[in-house]
Amino acid sequence: MYLFNRKIFKKENYDEALELIKKLVDESQKEEGCIIYDVYRDCDNELGLCIYEEWEGQEYLSAHQESAHFKELVPKIGALAEEKSPVYKFEKL
Amino acid sequence: MYLFNRKIFKKENYDEALELIKKLVDESQKEEGCIIYDVYRDCDNELGLCIYEEWEGQEYLSAHQESAHFKELVPKIGALAEEKSPVYKFEKL
Repeated sequence: MYLFNRKIFKKENYDEALELIKKLVDESQKEEGCIIYDVYRDCDNELGLCIYEEWEGQEYLSAHQESAHFKELVPKIGALAEEKSPVYKFEKL
Repeated sequence: MYLFNRKIFKKENYDEALELIKKLVDESQKEEGCIIYDVYRDCDNELGLCIYEEWEGQEYLSAHQESAHFKELVPKIGALAEEKSPVYKFEKL
């Protein structure tokens, strides 16, 4: 199971957002069932950051979304974003 | 270098679109510099199909976008889509 999303931040919020996302990445990578969890630079917008995730299954993703670091960091990151893509969730055919 | 996009198709176009995308996947996977190129099911919309790509570098992606199969299939697939996400292009930080 894979997730992808992109957020675009105001210039003055970018550094703070990146720090928070890096914290989220570090904590999430330690979680059971987490195969990939990383932050990427948006090639088309220098203030855009993308998160790409791969999970072994829904149960691990659900546990992730109930974790303390998710509940602490995701709202903070969201509040700094000026534009948010949907969170795309997809699976092998 | 990574690319992600999601397209949502009308029900009557879904099967044809999937066939065309599978052709695009098969041809693209043969290309030099192509690390990942695959089609996935959208978990939130049964008529959604996602394409996720990883390329060794821009030069390979550019060659891909100039290829005969790209020029033939991508417009056809696009014409069948009812909704198209942006093509997100992203890179490791």
